Amino acid sequence: MTLKARWAAGEATLGAWCMIPSALTAEALGRAGFDWVLIDMQHGCMDYETALSMIRAIDLSGAAPIVRVPWNDPGIIGRVLDAGALGVVIPMIQSAEEARCAVDACLYPPAGSRSFGPIRVGLRDGPGYFATANTRIAVIPMIETAQALDEVDAIASTPGVDAIFVGPFDLSIALGLPPGDNDGKPAFDEAISKIAAAAKKAGIATAVLSNAKVAPLRLQQGFQMVSVVTDINALTATARADLETVRRVGQEA
Amino acid sequence: MTLKARWAAGEATLGAWCMIPSALTAEALGRAGFDWVLIDMQHGCMDYETALSMIRAIDLSGAAPIVRVPWNDPGIIGRVLDAGALGVVIPMIQSAEEARCAVDACLYPPAGSRSFGPIRVGLRDGPGYFATANTRIAVIPMIETAQALDEVDAIASTPGVDAIFVGPFDLSIALGLPPGDNDGKPAFDEAISKIAAAAKKAGIATAVLSNAKVAPLRLQQGFQMVSVVTDINALTATARADLETVRRVGQEA
Amino acid sequence: MTLKARWAAGEATLGAWCMIPSALTAEALGRAGFDWVLIDMQHGCMDYETALSMIRAIDLSGAAPIVRVPWNDPGIIGRVLDAGALGVVIPMIQSAEEARCAVDACLYPPAGSRSFGPIRVGLRDGPGYFATANTRIAVIPMIETAQALDEVDAIASTPGVDAIFVGPFDLSIALGLPPGDNDGKPAFDEAISKIAAAAKKAGIATAVLSNAKVAPLRLQQGFQMVSVVTDINALTATARADLETVRRVGQEA
Amino acid sequence: MTLKARWAAGEATLGAWCMIPSALTAEALGRAGFDWVLIDMQHGCMDYETALSMIRAIDLSGAAPIVRVPWNDPGIIGRVLDAGALGVVIPMIQSAEEARCAVDACLYPPAGSRSFGPIRVGLRDGPGYFATANTRIAVIPMIETAQALDEVDAIASTPGVDAIFVGPFDLSIALGLPPGDNDGKPAFDEAISKIAAAAKKAGIATAVLSNAKVAPLRLQQGFQMVSVVTDINALTATARADLETVRRVGQEA
Amino acid sequence: MTLKARWAAGEATLGAWCMIPSALTAEALGRAGFDWVLIDMQHGCMDYETALSMIRAIDLSGAAPIVRVPWNDPGIIGRVLDAGALGVVIPMIQSAEEARCAVDACLYPPAGSRSFGPIRVGLRDGPGYFATANTRIAVIPMIETAQALDEVDAIASTPGVDAIFVGPFDLSIALGLPPGDNDGKPAFDEAISKIAAAAKKAGIATAVLSNAKVAPLRLQQGFQMVSVVTDINALTATARADLETVRRVGQEA
Amino acid sequence: MTLKARWAAGEATLGAWCMIPSALTAEALGRAGFDWVLIDMQHGCMDYETALSMIRAIDLSGAAPIVRVPWNDPGIIGRVLDAGALGVVIPMIQSAEEARCAVDACLYPPAGSRSFGPIRVGLRDGPGYFATANTRIAVIPMIETAQALDEVDAIASTPGVDAIFVGPFDLSIALGLPPGDNDGKPAFDEAISKIAAAAKKAGIATAVLSNAKVAPLRLQQGFQMVSVVTDINALTATARADLETVRRVGQEA
Repeated sequence: MTLKARWAAGEATLGAWCMIPSALTAEALGRAGFDWVLIDMQHGCMDYETALSMIRAIDLSGAAPIVRVPWNDPGIIGRVLDAGALGVVIPMIQSAEEARCAVDACLYPPAGSRSFGPIRVGLRDGPGYFATANTRIAVIPMIETAQALDEVDAIASTPGVDAIFVGPFDLSIALGLPPGDNDGKPAFDEAISKIAAAAKKAGIATAVLSNAKVAPLRLQQGFQMVSVVTDINALTATARADLETVRRVGQEA
Repeated sequence: MTLKARWAAGEATLGAWCMIPSALTAEALGRAGFDWVLIDMQHGCMDYETALSMIRAIDLSGAAPIVRVPWNDPGIIGRVLDAGALGVVIPMIQSAEEARCAVDACLYPPAGSRSFGPIRVGLRDGPGYFATANTRIAVIPMIETAQALDEVDAIASTPGVDAIFVGPFDLSIALGLPPGDNDGKPAFDEAISKIAAAAKKAGIATAVLSNAKVAPLRLQQGFQMVSVVTDINALTATARADLETVRRVGQEA
Repeated sequence: MTLKARWAAGEATLGAWCMIPSALTAEALGRAGFDWVLIDMQHGCMDYETALSMIRAIDLSGAAPIVRVPWNDPGIIGRVLDAGALGVVIPMIQSAEEARCAVDACLYPPAGSRSFGPIRVGLRDGPGYFATANTRIAVIPMIETAQALDEVDAIASTPGVDAIFVGPFDLSIALGLPPGDNDGKPAFDEAISKIAAAAKKAGIATAVLSNAKVAPLRLQQGFQMVSVVTDINALTATARADLETVRRVGQEA
Repeated sequence: MTLKARWAAGEATLGAWCMIPSALTAEALGRAGFDWVLIDMQHGCMDYETALSMIRAIDLSGAAPIVRVPWNDPGIIGRVLDAGALGVVIPMIQSAEEARCAVDACLYPPAGSRSFGPIRVGLRDGPGYFATANTRIAVIPMIETAQALDEVDAIASTPGVDAIFVGPFDLSIALGLPPGDNDGKPAFDEAISKIAAAAKKAGIATAVLSNAKVAPLRLQQGFQMVSVVTDINALTATARADLETVRRVGQEA
Repeated sequence: MTLKARWAAGEATLGAWCMIPSALTAEALGRAGFDWVLIDMQHGCMDYETALSMIRAIDLSGAAPIVRVPWNDPGIIGRVLDAGALGVVIPMIQSAEEARCAVDACLYPPAGSRSFGPIRVGLRDGPGYFATANTRIAVIPMIETAQALDEVDAIASTPGVDAIFVGPFDLSIALGLPPGDNDGKPAFDEAISKIAAAAKKAGIATAVLSNAKVAPLRLQQGFQMVSVVTDINALTATARADLETVRRVGQEA
Repeated sequence: MTLKARWAAGEATLGAWCMIPSALTAEALGRAGFDWVLIDMQHGCMDYETALSMIRAIDLSGAAPIVRVPWNDPGIIGRVLDAGALGVVIPMIQSAEEARCAVDACLYPPAGSRSFGPIRVGLRDGPGYFATANTRIAVIPMIETAQALDEVDAIASTPGVDAIFVGPFDLSIALGLPPGDNDGKPAFDEAISKIAAAAKKAGIATAVLSNAKVAPLRLQQGFQMVSVVTDINALTATARADLETVRRVGQEA
């Protein structure tokens, strides 16, 4: 069942976020049981060839491979779809017009104008890919600027948009808050509510970059695509904590 | 101060273990504050060019870059030293003769027969590298087979050997135990004691692959080079735990 | 003699199409005797560094290296020309204005506004490169959408355009047909005719993605740049056919 | 069912041979339906990191990933097994002693002395890997020199050897014949017979590098591991044939 | 002290220019003592992953890593900043509007609209990165076309622009001169003067691609960011000169 | 004409030495006019895939591609020959027996036991490669240790050895001298003479790592394979000198 179908059925899906340019870590995260694994080509460190190898690693696990592209550019959107992405997160969408461009780049005609050439994904999905791609691929614009917040209803109701994605860091900065989760601060909470309301009205899902601590709250808030782990953060935090523990025990001993 | 000097001064050093072929993760671990970061070219997934980029990343952090080579082969030993490794862990050493070969590959004449050509490390350490390399580089054979255990005294007392490294997984298998830490099982405990005694007698350090849970015990046992975190394990364990937590909370909600 | 000169002389040129990110396959195809070998950065799987290594491999063979860029973007167009491409295929051109932008990105002033810095191609072609580049480089927009078909005359007659390229898959989809060669279907045949007529009127060549089965027809239709083999398709088809043959013979035996 | 089990059951298995350093081609061959896909690190063009990405691509297809290592070296043998190879072809084995070394490198104690650290294959196969690896991995020495031919019985009956692999090119050269399949020439036919007899006597399988034309004969001769396609050869041959066809038709027209 | 601070203090800074996709050469240049080392993603040969490894190598040396992006595109600008670039050179800026877009992509809100996600640079600079990034990063548009020359005052005075960069090759071509340094030719000298005057008026620095021969003149002209060496040119020139010398001596002998 | 033929005709050949893992620099050096370009896999920084791309780049220039392997190991020797190396420099040869192993790895039977599979070089040289390889490939052991010096006559007269290569750095260290050219010091001069005499007696060439300053002396001494430039050294030296010049001029101004 596709992510879109699961969202339509009211399910929440949990994911992992890849910044590390490595198929090994992507495979490890996929096999950890997440519903989807996202390869971040905006703030992560991978080129296209590495991203493609990561999609194969995620495919091995049964998780849905998602890619955040660096920008709302039809060239790279087409390429990650040809690689096998089943969802595309597009950053910094500011308007319905920009959302339409994103949809256009993600879908084959007549719904969009994606160019045909599913070289790698055709290996995975066979000749039936063309007929089903538009219904399987999730188009997910981000809402993370003041302007986008103003236009969130128009963006959410753009035909072809399947979910709107909250980037809490940029959204906070746009609201004059420090980058991060600013739950409890009125401007932040209102923005979250506004985005959720727009999605609900448009009949689409909400999505968010999160972590294990905040994810439960996001699920309560109705988010249906919630990241739980970001690879490099998880590694760094665990390493620092473990080192501190062993250092302390070692010194006490 | 070099690792060798710290060991001679009785200090214990804590490290991180890299299996992931990525300078990003190596940099993250180095900057987390470990004394050394080891790049595992035996069971890890990196080629030489990637290992070299990881050494640069570790150099940025001030941690000492160590490399475990795939085998006791002078070609690859010379290459990782030219890249800037300050210690070499050599797996599957079976005898004093093999330890001598390892030392020989690590040290410039007359102590050994390492070939001169410090292309990258010369950028880092300048023209003084040649004069000081032999005193700075740690040669660290592994003791992980039945035969090595029999010959541990001869290996430990081989001139030029700076520490002997326990691989608990292979050692356990050699002893007929399941791979892992088998503390409490007599055969394992005796092997650890025997290795520690041999090192003590030879006036060198003991080293071990470990983790946050077992590391305190290893420090108590006198190990002076103890790994606390293995990158892919830390990532996988944290990801699985976080996912489980959020899933459970999500379902309870 | 450049491709442009051969087209002007009425010659047809045959090519190979590279989707595989590998200089080995590019070299094999170049040495197979094709007039040109195209590196597909739109639907193929290579990053820029790999594409550059493929251009070297094609240069070894004497075939002309051509690149299809992912999008009509002056950044990547300049980069593939600096790498040594002698022709650029630009996908999804919709209008004369877009064709002008493509020409602009491909040619040095005053004909265009390509930025100067032929780092790698300068190694190949020497200091004379700047003076001759504009006459040697072929600018080849694709006609593959309904809008492009409407504007084909204006696109074909844009100064600096050397050929117009038919993408049969996207063109078919644009016409409401299944992706592929739809010869015999009136909409497809008319589109081909219209494109050919526009090129003829503008005095430029027509080009097409094809295969061994359809290429003879395309040559009859006057196409002067016809691909005969697509690497991954050729490999897959041959492998499947050979496996089937051997399986059948093995079972009969 | 493992290859070894299928061989024991009398089945023949057909495979593809990868020289191209690319996960795309490996995935294409795996998905074409072969029983196994071999990554040739001896005469092929890939480093370890690429080989590992190819193993993932083959895993996606369900075919068994096999690796030919560059030499009978325990370092690289251990690494390809850690990557997930389910069989190792070891070139240029000259004696039972060398075959024993190969077996030793492939199997965990007590059957061999492979070092434990299944970092990537552990992701694929889970904690059960250690217990089953020795029974699942096929150890396949090559018989391709005059000396090996003399010692073929001893090599074939070395405990742990699962199949002996004929390299027709080197074997022919060793016999003073031109490199290739020299069926019909007595020295070649006798060598094949001798190898087959040795394998039969030892109760193991015979394996061979082949192609679509010769494979049926090899199956008749009882080979149970027969390659049908070599990637770069298939691509080159098809490309040359297609080009010639289109050129001829074009000129006739 | 940042480059911007040094420019404000009237200092001139000297740099090296990287076309070679290699962290080894980047490290060598950084350690040679330059104030900054620029990675040229426009005319140089590196992809993003290589550029990132080069930034680490430059960081090791204490030089400031600067990147020239292929085009004025917010996607790649954000990515090189996330990698750790402390300055961005943006080619082919034609107008104040385009300069504003460049500034916007380089700076966090409210000064610009850069998206937050300093994955790698956060490892280097820690949690304080966000607060100081805007003051530390130099935004450096290029003036290299006729139109830019016309609009140079508006570009130079665009808020957030820290320096304007002269590309002598493109500028010369734009002026109808051969690519290169055309000092002494009135059109070129006037253009240089005009750019210098615009910068002075706007209170920002001037920057230029240069070489050891011309750099002293550029310093006299008040340029505060002057490249002295371009890697591939330096290597080629030295190699040709050395070869010629040895050939001549060899023949004379 | 092969290097071997030129040596036999009494010619001296000049070369460039590649430490940088880059086909761009290899191409630049090849096109600078050297007779040969050597890829140093012992002290240089490249893996096999990079080395292969460098060989293609050298092939483009007409220079002969030579590779120094990391060690006297038949696996890597075969691989670099399959990639297209026309000469192999083997470090740290200590005896005639080791020289015989090197020859054995370089030549096809019956002269040696190189395994057949010229995948990439077969693309370059076609089906005739096998018949001519043994006469075209130069086998070049290094003499750089005390033991090798003792056995130099036996090494030089080993059938199949085409030249003996002096590594002045290791040779100096072996003689108790600082690494470098120690001309004028008796031990060094005698060693050079002894090696030259051994080569002369055996009717083979002498070869040496050198630089523009020392090369003329080496030519006078009869060396027929003399390196003139080492890439990273040339780049570093030029960059440092240029920076110093410009700094000085800038400060004087």
